Amino acid sequence: MDAVIDLNSDLGEGFGAWPLGDDDALLDVVTSANIACGFHAGDPSVLRRVTERAAERGVSIGAQVGYRDLAGFGRRFIDMDPDDLANDVIYQIGALDGFARIAGSAVRYVKPHGALYNAVVAHAEQAAAVVEAIRRYDPALPVLGLPGSQLVKQAEEAGLSVVLESFADRAYTPQGTLVSRREASAVVLDPDVVVERSVRMAVEGAVQAVDGSVLKLSPQSLCVHGDTPGAVEIARRVRKALADAGVAVKPFV
Amino acid sequence: MDAVIDLNSDLGEGFGAWPLGDDDALLDVVTSANIACGFHAGDPSVLRRVTERAAERGVSIGAQVGYRDLAGFGRRFIDMDPDDLANDVIYQIGALDGFARIAGSAVRYVKPHGALYNAVVAHAEQAAAVVEAIRRYDPALPVLGLPGSQLVKQAEEAGLSVVLESFADRAYTPQGTLVSRREASAVVLDPDVVVERSVRMAVEGAVQAVDGSVLKLSPQSLCVHGDTPGAVEIARRVRKALADAGVAVKPFV
Amino acid sequence: MDAVIDLNSDLGEGFGAWPLGDDDALLDVVTSANIACGFHAGDPSVLRRVTERAAERGVSIGAQVGYRDLAGFGRRFIDMDPDDLANDVIYQIGALDGFARIAGSAVRYVKPHGALYNAVVAHAEQAAAVVEAIRRYDPALPVLGLPGSQLVKQAEEAGLSVVLESFADRAYTPQGTLVSRREASAVVLDPDVVVERSVRMAVEGAVQAVDGSVLKLSPQSLCVHGDTPGAVEIARRVRKALADAGVAVKPFV
Amino acid sequence: MDAVIDLNSDLGEGFGAWPLGDDDALLDVVTSANIACGFHAGDPSVLRRVTERAAERGVSIGAQVGYRDLAGFGRRFIDMDPDDLANDVIYQIGALDGFARIAGSAVRYVKPHGALYNAVVAHAEQAAAVVEAIRRYDPALPVLGLPGSQLVKQAEEAGLSVVLESFADRAYTPQGTLVSRREASAVVLDPDVVVERSVRMAVEGAVQAVDGSVLKLSPQSLCVHGDTPGAVEIARRVRKALADAGVAVKPFV
Repeated sequence: MDAVIDLNSDLGEGFGAWPLGDDDALLDVVTSANIACGFHAGDPSVLRRVTERAAERGVSIGAQVGYRDLAGFGRRFIDMDPDDLANDVIYQIGALDGFARIAGSAVRYVKPHGALYNAVVAHAEQAAAVVEAIRRYDPALPVLGLPGSQLVKQAEEAGLSVVLESFADRAYTPQGTLVSRREASAVVLDPDVVVERSVRMAVEGAVQAVDGSVLKLSPQSLCVHGDTPGAVEIARRVRKALADAGVAVKPFV
Repeated sequence: MDAVIDLNSDLGEGFGAWPLGDDDALLDVVTSANIACGFHAGDPSVLRRVTERAAERGVSIGAQVGYRDLAGFGRRFIDMDPDDLANDVIYQIGALDGFARIAGSAVRYVKPHGALYNAVVAHAEQAAAVVEAIRRYDPALPVLGLPGSQLVKQAEEAGLSVVLESFADRAYTPQGTLVSRREASAVVLDPDVVVERSVRMAVEGAVQAVDGSVLKLSPQSLCVHGDTPGAVEIARRVRKALADAGVAVKPFV
Repeated sequence: MDAVIDLNSDLGEGFGAWPLGDDDALLDVVTSANIACGFHAGDPSVLRRVTERAAERGVSIGAQVGYRDLAGFGRRFIDMDPDDLANDVIYQIGALDGFARIAGSAVRYVKPHGALYNAVVAHAEQAAAVVEAIRRYDPALPVLGLPGSQLVKQAEEAGLSVVLESFADRAYTPQGTLVSRREASAVVLDPDVVVERSVRMAVEGAVQAVDGSVLKLSPQSLCVHGDTPGAVEIARRVRKALADAGVAVKPFV
Repeated sequence: MDAVIDLNSDLGEGFGAWPLGDDDALLDVVTSANIACGFHAGDPSVLRRVTERAAERGVSIGAQVGYRDLAGFGRRFIDMDPDDLANDVIYQIGALDGFARIAGSAVRYVKPHGALYNAVVAHAEQAAAVVEAIRRYDPALPVLGLPGSQLVKQAEEAGLSVVLESFADRAYTPQGTLVSRREASAVVLDPDVVVERSVRMAVEGAVQAVDGSVLKLSPQSLCVHGDTPGAVEIARRVRKALADAGVAVKPFV
């Protein structure tokens, strides 16, 4: 049995007096930390702290780049000029990279956040802007994204490394896309089922879609959440179940 | 005659729809560009553009770090926690450095902006925070500052390189400090006098104080301004007069 | 001859150290001032100053509400939750109204700015949010908008007063909509033509569309610009030409 | 027994995705709500919600004005130009007042927040700016402040109403000022003691200072906190103990 998987989660999303999530607990669970870069969340002192702790634990540091939108937590699509978006992404990667290098590490990958993550599934211009930003900043940086997305397609065309992720707590259509959050069935709520799906994704590269059909997925990373009550506990169970199933949980980079 | 001097000026201080100063004109005059990093001015697209043009012209890129204060343009003292200030400085250097490296260069030095520049003359804790930020980001980065300031003293004690600057358009007290801007005599308005003082500072290492006494100064850099009508023209005249006097105008780093 | 028209323009769009446009010059030309409210431009000291001067000159004060987007000057569509948008609009109207009342006046109307102005032409939910905000803040406040827009339709359905505006410097399609700015012919550049079209709009309620056909328009207000070189001079010429043609130029409210 | 007292607390201090404190629980305890106005905390949707709920419960709405400093939660002194500060205060009161009026109420008083609260104890220019802002916005609005502060003195001189507050959970010097938070003894941690001090302040107008001497205080309002674990429970106990002691707990305005 030589299955290997990465676990990624969003971290560093507090801002000033406002904490969010339990970064320390998550750092004991995940192998890749998507760290906010200050535009949708994450003030510099948060970034300093979480990059240091990630580096200490051997957790890979990823730049979780987002729209400049503190009030909306980056969850609102902004119809930006692509050049401006590319520059916003470069700015954020650079800022986080400074802290990562101080911590003895570096930004190891890039993952868009929130509405930007959703936008680059289909918005070709914004996907191109993110790809261009990474390519200019450091063409060796992989991008972590959704299979079939514009981001992933364009990243591959541009010669960037691509790491595909799956969501054990999200329902899939028979076509392999995520069921929209507007649907009642979008999120898998039962922790036992989330854990079971995680293991199946990692071991068999498969997941059951909403119609009962079986999809083939080969994720290199599973995204787990830490911002809701119970989420950290589920993430811990996912990690343990993977280990019990003989899956090596380690960073993809 | 082997006098050498650097000319530095503030650039990249527009934000979004709001331009400020004439970056292109100044880049033809100065040898070091103190580029805003986004906290008091300078959106990412401004930073991208001005770092690229600075690199093309061989102008050194400096991180002009400031307080997080767009509404006040960084001109208002903020009584920050020193650790937060250090992290704000690291964030800004890192963000600018990303653009500088994309442009084929790098951040070559750090100069505080506005109220932070004034604060670190005497505010030991904030000066220590700026020094600590630079030391952690890259201890090879020189700091550009005012002779006798806390910033300069602490930077030297921390083993950082220090570059001293003078202001040809500012009046000096007999003790060698700048006359406060609250005094009517603080600023030298006559362009001919500014030009003459520039040359004397560079060639003789001397300037006349407000009481007529002569101060010894050995600036490695002269700060010129570009944000007022006529300022760029004065800067051009300063550069030409220095050349005519046989002074080599080139970056200190 | 008893033609009457209002002239409106965007004012108060500076922010901190960054001025924009010539508010004082425009206040001598227009009868209605669309004053920025701080979300896309306009810091509180700008608002204080421009509301006082508008009140002194008898210029009507309008709340020029926009997206929370200083970096993009409110020119980027943001896919906001409509409830949040309504609350952002209320916040902005209230903030400006405080200054207007201190100046002895009040907010007299509301006009969306930039990308929000464009969005509410067709985006029913965002248009509804703006209407709901005005209705809740003060149902006696008219909305200044584009004929045929969702904003205007929904405002009328909600029982709000509606004031229709035309643009003498924009080309019209035969259907009466504005030619997209992506088209080369979108903007009328010749000042003489702009002036002539202004008078015809006010006197005849007519404008020539791009195909040569004549459209009937009955604008109660003409929008003039002040943020480009020469714009204020064109606005002055428009006002003079209207007066010369016997059109009374005065606020609609 | 006809003792009367108001209980005030800070509310509305969430921002976007970041909640803070338990507004609903506090609204069942306090009679005056110091509601953040968006500069240090409190996005428009938070303001909408908390003003509506305060109005429903008959809780007085106060404008908790602060420095423009989301990253620092308004807890960092900013050395602002007094005119700009006055305008920032007017802007914030106006914005909150819009929501309060929509809720069928109005802003009933003003209380500075955080570092501004501390600054106006001794900083005459900033205290004057806050007083000027209130006087211009509505001279009938009382200011809620600390006995002996510059704010209170200048407000009285300007003819504003002043409401004095005490803190049952803070230690007092024999001179009647608060023990600095830098001292270990600054905060009274024992809930029983906080409750006992609250009742004594309300009934006897007295409190024991750190040296054991008894100070005469006649607060019209007691400030209770809601942002720490257990704080709401202590506030509930204070309210109940006041009622048990025959003190009428009601808004001062």
